[in-house]
This record gives sequence, structure tokens and C-alpha cells, in this order.
Amino acid sequence: MQISFTAAEIAAIAGPRSTRGSTSETVRGLAGLDDAGPGDLSFLGNPKYKSAVASTKASVVLLPEDFAGVPQPNQVFFLVEKPSVALAQICTRIEQSLWPRPVPGIHPTASVDPTARVPASATVGPLCVVEAGAVLGERVHLQAQVFIGREATVGDDCWLMPGVVVATACELGRRVRLQPGVVIGGDGFGYEFVQGRHEKIPQVGIVTIGDDVEIGANSTVDRARFSRTAVGEGTKIDNLVMVAHNVVVGKHCLLCAQVGISGSTTLEDYVVLGGQVGTGGHIRIGKGAKAGGQAGITTDVAPGSFVNGTPAIPYLLERKVAVLQQRLPDLFRRVDRLEAQLRDAE
Amino acid sequence: MQISFTAAEIAAIAGPRSTRGSTSETVRGLAGLDDAGPGDLSFLGNPKYKSAVASTKASVVLLPEDFAGVPQPNQVFFLVEKPSVALAQICTRIEQSLWPRPVPGIHPTASVDPTARVPASATVGPLCVVEAGAVLGERVHLQAQVFIGREATVGDDCWLMPGVVVATACELGRRVRLQPGVVIGGDGFGYEFVQGRHEKIPQVGIVTIGDDVEIGANSTVDRARFSRTAVGEGTKIDNLVMVAHNVVVGKHCLLCAQVGISGSTTLEDYVVLGGQVGTGGHIRIGKGAKAGGQAGITTDVAPGSFVNGTPAIPYLLERKVAVLQQRLPDLFRRVDRLEAQLRDAE
Amino acid sequence: MQISFTAAEIAAIAGPRSTRGSTSETVRGLAGLDDAGPGDLSFLGNPKYKSAVASTKASVVLLPEDFAGVPQPNQVFFLVEKPSVALAQICTRIEQSLWPRPVPGIHPTASVDPTARVPASATVGPLCVVEAGAVLGERVHLQAQVFIGREATVGDDCWLMPGVVVATACELGRRVRLQPGVVIGGDGFGYEFVQGRHEKIPQVGIVTIGDDVEIGANSTVDRARFSRTAVGEGTKIDNLVMVAHNVVVGKHCLLCAQVGISGSTTLEDYVVLGGQVGTGGHIRIGKGAKAGGQAGITTDVAPGSFVNGTPAIPYLLERKVAVLQQRLPDLFRRVDRLEAQLRDAE
Repeated sequence: MQISFTAAEIAAIAGPRSTRGSTSETVRGLAGLDDAGPGDLSFLGNPKYKSAVASTKASVVLLPEDFAGVPQPNQVFFLVEKPSVALAQICTRIEQSLWPRPVPGIHPTASVDPTARVPASATVGPLCVVEAGAVLGERVHLQAQVFIGREATVGDDCWLMPGVVVATACELGRRVRLQPGVVIGGDGFGYEFVQGRHEKIPQVGIVTIGDDVEIGANSTVDRARFSRTAVGEGTKIDNLVMVAHNVVVGKHCLLCAQVGISGSTTLEDYVVLGGQVGTGGHIRIGKGAKAGGQAGITTDVAPGSFVNGTPAIPYLLERKVAVLQQRLPDLFRRVDRLEAQLRDAE
Repeated sequence: MQISFTAAEIAAIAGPRSTRGSTSETVRGLAGLDDAGPGDLSFLGNPKYKSAVASTKASVVLLPEDFAGVPQPNQVFFLVEKPSVALAQICTRIEQSLWPRPVPGIHPTASVDPTARVPASATVGPLCVVEAGAVLGERVHLQAQVFIGREATVGDDCWLMPGVVVATACELGRRVRLQPGVVIGGDGFGYEFVQGRHEKIPQVGIVTIGDDVEIGANSTVDRARFSRTAVGEGTKIDNLVMVAHNVVVGKHCLLCAQVGISGSTTLEDYVVLGGQVGTGGHIRIGKGAKAGGQAGITTDVAPGSFVNGTPAIPYLLERKVAVLQQRLPDLFRRVDRLEAQLRDAE
Repeated sequence: MQISFTAAEIAAIAGPRSTRGSTSETVRGLAGLDDAGPGDLSFLGNPKYKSAVASTKASVVLLPEDFAGVPQPNQVFFLVEKPSVALAQICTRIEQSLWPRPVPGIHPTASVDPTARVPASATVGPLCVVEAGAVLGERVHLQAQVFIGREATVGDDCWLMPGVVVATACELGRRVRLQPGVVIGGDGFGYEFVQGRHEKIPQVGIVTIGDDVEIGANSTVDRARFSRTAVGEGTKIDNLVMVAHNVVVGKHCLLCAQVGISGSTTLEDYVVLGGQVGTGGHIRIGKGAKAGGQAGITTDVAPGSFVNGTPAIPYLLERKVAVLQQRLPDLFRRVDRLEAQLRDAE
């Protein structure tokens, strides 16, 4: 990562209210206060780390306006309204240098069917495949080795990273970002048991992904048996997540890594599922409901509730049960003693 | 998804016993009774939804022969022996239009070693790699960006979707369907701990996949330490499943999404594992045994049994324990009270 | 798998102290004593299987020096110091024949940016992409369809299998082996909730992978928010594992299949996590700590400890609790009885 900003360039991005000290170092990295060294930029995002500022070796430190300390030699403090916002501005700038806007056009090694629609503003990177009838939106970026199946559509400003697969007829909204290895539109897992064999039920539906959805590396969203598997606008999905056929994920949900949603289940808007959560099929998880990591959700979940454990139950009850379970050895001893006392009493 | 059938074409596929009403709409989609609109085909698969027929907006409805209602204007009822079978026939036809038989031949962008055997009936799609000595069967379809390693064999009529990897010397039977991103033949996870380091145990076995096996997106089956990791005929594996080295999966098993089978474990025929189930290594799961979602199987499982929970125990016992756990707070209070009563009595 | 060794060639590799019997068979496979047939090599690795030697059909058997039996006709016993070591030597030789050293050079179908550094000793296989400024070490092997992002670095003697993605600016040490489909450097899962939407926090850090690390098929390691996600030297990671942003994995750890490590968590050296273990974020797992399969680690774990269950607690306590849970139905009955007795007594 070759980032390189002078202190003056940082100041131009972050717009500090005031400045203390100065540095001749060039900023070449970002780090937490304790880990930073010369050439790093750091920041005080949480007041509880205030004491770490005095000893940080960072060359540039973003601090809240009311911060009282003074910098060391060859160190500059930029006092800003919100250090976390200033940091985000700097990160956005770094992001642009890490992933510059690609040059539009179709790479000569890509394989694009003549019936596919690729606007002049789109980038089809090396070794991509775009099948017949596929439609790419404006400024779409297929980075490399991406596969777009027959009659699939990719909305404006989508960015599909290396190795992504969007299978036949699936539809992506605008500004969708798919991390490497994501598979959209693999077959749903549907079989009928006939004379000792599992006969395949054809999976002829599609997947629709809403605007501003992001999906993490190697996650999979299966096509519907018929009709559609849908992921709503603004939802963010982490790595290695499985969304089965005919699932409906609402808007602005968060699915952490390795979550699995079984077939035909519905998540309403703003649902948050912790890592490795699994759900049964054909259930409904209400608006804004949350589940703790590894929960196993077997029945409908009421809107706004917070569940935990397998089978998932209300969070506070589950916490209490988890504590009491650890006291089971003691409880068994207590009951043994009670029985002995009653025997003696008789 | 550009499907398009007239009502007459649907009738020709489904062969209704009788017809009520008529429609001028072209069928362009499939949907459930409640979700369907004009231009959709729907069906009554389960008698409990019978009341939804009267209000469905579907243009074409598949119904059982004894159904009594009458269609709305511009709506046609096809009365068939089994609506679900008729639907499957239509889906199969749609599947053929979604994924038409590919044109045989080797795409000019594919990289095929001259010593590989590719019959004239096979299709090697764009940007595939077929290494030295690999053997493809009749009508094999490598869709795009597929990798077939040295001396691997792929049986007749296999369909390998984009991004599939079949590593050196692995063997697929006939009619195997691998969804995008499947990896067959990655190294098994085997190390010996020598002087503070994990030294690799070479994994020089292979993987054999039986006839009619289907494996879901981004699942992985590791090669054996030596000998073979085997998946039996007719077994269906969902997405993001891990089958470790030297595992033997029997015939006609179902492994739901995100299941993990540890090394050298054997699943006999007709085993069914729910989503996110994990098993220990070197155990045997008997014929027809079932495990509920997220179960953790640590010991052998008897044929025909149904287990649940971590560690997995008989299903009915686990259900009972799960209910009683939620009553633990109450049980502790009851024991507190008993102790107090006995103290008072003394 | 076309392996082929005469008994004399096996003897040359294994260097037996003494030999009994002889065989005219060529060794074409390896198998356990019970499974082996003519043409197979087998071995006695564990004394408890001693009785299986008499009935094995293997043509060549590796045995400890003090083994007393005699071979059958057309069967040879090689008596060696340690059969498992001799076997490993043979496997290493087989490995070399399965995966011979690739020919150096850039395949004509690969897409390599002119500013990337590819030494003459490296192999860039078919349909690989190497972006601008990437640096490959000596003898690096990109097998096929591998993606190396801008300014990423790949150390000497790394082997990256088909479909591997190493994203922008990530760094691999020496002798790193990445199985097919591994993704290094997907974006971390970081969002801030602003006015009803999840706004992306740019993920501008990198991933560093230490020397001698191996990562299994379709596993993912996310890039840091800033700074780095790190996997230490000698650590081995199984398939479908998720390492989140800003995680630090120490040296010589073992992460079994489908493990998920949440963001900013630290694993010290020699940590061992069983399959499907999940950890919370921002916690520390001490040196040499172990967790059983499916454990859910929610708090710091002391060095050297062994935990199990969700939430993870000390292993022995968890085992005891798991057994007592199965006796809960009985415990409830006992408390019912006690209450009834006390009622009667009053």
C-alpha cells in the first residue's frame, strides 16, 4: 500500500480548526495510537484512550477540539470537530488511490457475447465472461475473471471483484459491490424423493439484489425455485454467508459472516444476525429483530426482539439460562442433599 | 428471465384433463397464488391454500381435477391429475430455455493441453483450463472459467458451472452437476507437530464423486491423505459445505448448507444432515440417520436414528431438554425454597 | 492418479533395515491394511492394528523393526525404524509426481501488467491476472486463473492454486500455499449507521500472511479497516474459514474448517480452534489455548486453557454440564417429588 500524504495534504482533507506542532514526516500509514510509529497518522476516536496520546509515536494525530495536550517534537496535532469523521474523509481519499477509477472499455482478453449490452462507460476487465443478452449499466466495473450469465442485468455503478459469478437472468441494482468469489444465482437446493432417489426440482427463478447492497467474499445467494430470491436495498452481507432459494431479505439488514438462511424464510427490514446464525426455512423474522452469534432460529421472531442460543429464545432469558447451566453440577448436589435430608427425616 | 408461453403452449406441456375459461395473456413468470399477477402462471399444490385461488390474479392456474371454482375474466384454469407434476414439467421446459444445450466445441479462449481428451460432443467454454492428461466424457459442459487438473476425469453429461475447480487426478462420475465455485480436491488438512512447527503431511489421495451427485456453490471436498475421499451416487450437497479428507459419504445422502464433515468420518447411505451440522472425525453415521440443524455429532450415530443438539443426542430427548433449560431459573428458585423450608423445619 | 513404483524403488526411498518376502507387483496405490489390495502399499502406523497385517492383501507393507510376522506369497515386508516416517517419505515422492515443478514463464493467456515484477524463475499459469505494481518472488507458482491485485506482493516459493484472489496491496510471505478459491483482502465488514442506512467505512488496510502459512479452499481473510489483518508464520487454516478485518492470528495456530474470527480479535501463538468455532470481536485468545468444535468464544481465553460450548467455558466443566443437561428431565421429576413430600409432611 503506497500511500503518501504530507501533513499539509492531510490538513487540506481534514480541515482542522487549529493545529499544534509540526512534522517533516510524510504520512505513509494509519495506525492506532499505541501501534503507530513515525510516518503514521493516528487519531483519538474514543475519549477512554486519551492517555495514549501523550506516548504515541504517530507523526500526525487527529484530536477533538477540546484536547488539552501538546505534541512531541516532529509531531503535529490537528484539532477537528470529530476525529472519526476526519479519519473517514482521509480513508475515502486513500480508497480512491488504492482503487482508482478504472479505465472504461473491454479488455482484449475478456469474452463478451456480441448480443450483450456494454455501455461505453463500463469497464470489463481481463478474462471476464459476459454471456448473450446480458446488460451492464453505466460505469459498471467487472474487475477481472468475473462471469455474467445469459440475460443477467447489472445496474449502474456496480463493482464486481475478481471471480464473482452472476448466473443466468439474475438482476443487480445500482451501486452493488460484490467481493471476490461471490456467487449469485446458483441453483436452490430442492429435490423430491422418488423411489429411493432425490429427483431434482428445476430451479427456474432468479435472484434480485437491491441498490447499495454489498456482499462479502465467497458468499452465495441461490436462485429461486421459481419467482425470485430477493435481497433488499442497502443490506450488507459479510463473507461466507448462505442465502437459500426463495428467501426474502429486507432493506438495510446486516448478516454477519457465515450466517445461513434456509429456504423461503423472510427477513423484514433492519434485521441484524450475528456470525454463524442459522435459521429454519419458511419462517419470518420481524423488523429490526436481532440474533446473537451462533443462534439457531427455529420459529418466527417478533419485530424488535433480540434472541440468542439454539433454539433461539429471548436474549435475557438465554443469558440467565447460560449462567445457570454452569451451576448445574452444584444444583444436582443440592438436590441430592435435599433427598438425603428427607430420607433421614423420615 | 425471458420466458414466454401462450396458454395453448402451457396446455401442450401440462396436458390438462379439462379447461375452464381462457386468457389472452402470455405467461411470462411463475408465482404463488397470492403473489401472482397478470401474465403469471400459478398452481394449487397444497389443498390448504384452496381459498387463495378465488382471488389470485394469475392468468393461468394449474388445479387438481376435483377443483370446483370458476375462473375470473381473462383467466384460464387447467385441471390436471397432479398440479405439482404439471408444474415440474413446465419448469423443466423453462430450464431448457434458461440453459439451452451448449454448442459443442472448445472456445478459442480456453486453454486445453494437447494431451487432454475432449470428445467432439463436449463443450469447453470461455477461459477454461484443462490440464495435461485430463479426460472429459461425452457431452460434458464446462461452462466458463472452469479448471480441470492433470489427469482428472469428468464423466459423461457432467455440467460444471463457472469457477469450478477439479484438481489433479480427481474423478467425477456421470451427470454430476457442480454449482459455481465448487472446489474438488483441495489438500486435506493434515499436519504433524514437529519441534514447534506443523509439518505438512502430503495429501496424495484423490476425490471420487459418484453418478448424479450435485454440489452447491462454493462447497469444498478435500482430497484424501492417500486413497480417496468419496461421495456416493445420487448424493446432493448444498452450498458452502466442507467434506474433509478421507471422508466417505454414502449414496443418496442430503447435506444441507454449511455442513462440515471432519476427516475420515463415514456417512452411510440416505443420511440427512441439516444446515450447519458439524461432525467429529473418524466416526460413523448409520444408514438413514438424520441430524437437526446446527447439531454437533461427536460419536457414532445408529442407523435410522434422529439426533439434535451439541453434543448430538436423540431428538426427542434434546427437545425435552431444550424446553426444560428455559425453566432453569424457576428450578433454581424451587430448590432455594425447598432448602429454606427444610432449614425452617429443623 | 498414475503412481507406479517397483518394490525396489520403494525400498530405495524408505531405506528398510531388513526385508521379508518379495513381490512382482508394481505399487499403484496406497491404502489402509484392511482396504489394500494387490498393487497397494500399506503400513502399520499404530500397534493396535497389528492383527490386520496377517490378512492384508497389500503387496508392500511398511512395518516396525520388531514386527514378528511373515509375509504371504507375492508380498514384501519392509521393516523400518518408523513406518509413518517412511510413509511420509514415499508420499512426498508421490506428491512430486502429482504436482511436478512447473515450467517457469508466463503463459500466453495470462494478463500481466507491464509494471508487475515477475522473476524468470516464476510460473504464471494460464488465464492469471497480475495487476500493476504487483511483485512476485522467486519460483512463485500461480497455477491458473489466479488474481494478484495492484501492488500486492507474493513471497518466494509461494504456490497459489486455481481461482485464488490476492487483492490490492496484500502481502504474502515465503512458501505460502493457498488452496483453490482462497480470497485474501476482501473488504472488512464495517459500516456506520447514519439516518437509517449503513454507510460504508472504507477498508484501506491490507492483509499480511506470514511464511509457511497454508490456507484451505474457499477461505477468506479480510483486509483491515486500516493498518493490517495478520496471519502469523506457520499457521495452518482449513477450508471455508473466515478471518475478519484487523484480526491478528499468531504463529503456528491451527484453525479447522468453517471457523469464524470476528473483527479485531487476537489469537496468540499456537492457538487451536476446532471446526465451526466462532469468536466474538475485540477479544484475546491466549497462547496455546484450545477450543472444541462449534464453541462460541465470547470473552478472553487464558493462555493454555481448553474451552468448549457456547458460550465457551472450561472444557471439563462443559463436559460435566452437557451430561447433566441430559438428566434434566429426571432432575425436574426429583424436585417435583421433593415438593410433594414436603407438602405431605406439613
